[in-house]
Amino acid sequence: MTYCVAVKLEQGLIFASDSRTHAGVDNYATFCKMTVFERVGDRVIVMLSSGGLAGTQAVISVLRQRIDAGVENLFNAPSMFEVANRVADAMRHIDRRDTPHMGDRPFNASFILGGQIKGRPMQLFRIYAEGNFIEAGTETPFLQTGEAKYGKPIIDRVITPSTSLADGIKCLLISFDSTLRSNLSVGMPIDLLCYERDSLRANLRHRFEAGDAHFNAIREQWNAGTRRVFKELPELRWSA
Amino acid sequence: MTYCVAVKLEQGLIFASDSRTHAGVDNYATFCKMTVFERVGDRVIVMLSSGGLAGTQAVISVLRQRIDAGVENLFNAPSMFEVANRVADAMRHIDRRDTPHMGDRPFNASFILGGQIKGRPMQLFRIYAEGNFIEAGTETPFLQTGEAKYGKPIIDRVITPSTSLADGIKCLLISFDSTLRSNLSVGMPIDLLCYERDSLRANLRHRFEAGDAHFNAIREQWNAGTRRVFKELPELRWSA
Repeated sequence: MTYCVAVKLEQGLIFASDSRTHAGVDNYATFCKMTVFERVGDRVIVMLSSGGLAGTQAVISVLRQRIDAGVENLFNAPSMFEVANRVADAMRHIDRRDTPHMGDRPFNASFILGGQIKGRPMQLFRIYAEGNFIEAGTETPFLQTGEAKYGKPIIDRVITPSTSLADGIKCLLISFDSTLRSNLSVGMPIDLLCYERDSLRANLRHRFEAGDAHFNAIREQWNAGTRRVFKELPELRWSA
Repeated sequence: MTYCVAVKLEQGLIFASDSRTHAGVDNYATFCKMTVFERVGDRVIVMLSSGGLAGTQAVISVLRQRIDAGVENLFNAPSMFEVANRVADAMRHIDRRDTPHMGDRPFNASFILGGQIKGRPMQLFRIYAEGNFIEAGTETPFLQTGEAKYGKPIIDRVITPSTSLADGIKCLLISFDSTLRSNLSVGMPIDLLCYERDSLRANLRHRFEAGDAHFNAIREQWNAGTRRVFKELPELRWSA
């Protein structure tokens, strides 16, 4: 399983992904599910991967190959919309190549894709395995893939477009904490990237390894604080 | 969709269920999903229903019919384990009768079942549509059906067997609040039943209609309180 989430705030974009992959419960591994295409001062493009690792890695490799080949690629796309189209093209290429050989486990890679190109607005997409995609808006400024439900209530409660980047980061960490508690197949480390609007560079990155002091402080304070709030809630009075 | 949850605490059992049913998004209705079989001083048996309404109602009707007929039934079962077996028998009866006529939407009723018979321990079960069942224990003292994920983190954080009934009720109401916020197809009113161990009566019941003052107080205080805790969490410091 996987948990990936990204939010689009007025101040910027925040991306977070877990890093557990498995082929059955007896074969776990750690892979970074966050890929960054960056050309400082021109564009930052971030992809979070869900689905079979062979599929997601193949798509990323095709995207890199196309950059090296100098053909239509992520670095010469004129807009984030066109970036999303080119990712979809790469996904369909891999789907056509692999699925006929894969029996009842067809290509199932999907991506959260976001970023900014110089002079253009930030955009955030979720690209389905079929290659079609949706874009985050002001009513729903976040997108999730994988084990999304456990971590959704806190985002629903806290995130609006005017939320600060610092608060957005806190919220995603709590969202991960809730998910990690309830689903063993989502695992640390957690990769976090915070993109400041119009900065056109991806320098704010942190990997939260198991035992990370900041993550532990957040989860402990949240746990103690919510228990305190809980204790103070009114008790139900039964009418006779 | 449905959300039903029950917890088994040292002090007693708590049951809660939503009451929304629908056949497509354009055909909503309200039905109580909580059924109580009570003989004061002898036994209290509570069932929470999930799955197609025709199936769950048919099972309940068969159980009532068997009581009226004086054959093996819930009121003469010697143990809660045997009660669970008799519910499973009724489910399989309806499954055999209906499924051959139902195309690709076979019998899918499932139940949370709990209660106590005089002189015996309280027990709490989840009975799957196939009629097999699991029992809640001290490590996992709660069982959920339907839209379970949104409301699970708060239960994971708060509930242990020694939690008081008053705190257990608060926790289930917050669990419902989280679920209602994230899934429109779970709807109020919420039916709540609190069974005090060895009381052998089911007199603590409350229906939370939309706009219920206590439910609103809980959700508002919880929302304000968690936001306050959130604000006080430490911000991430980026290392250069």
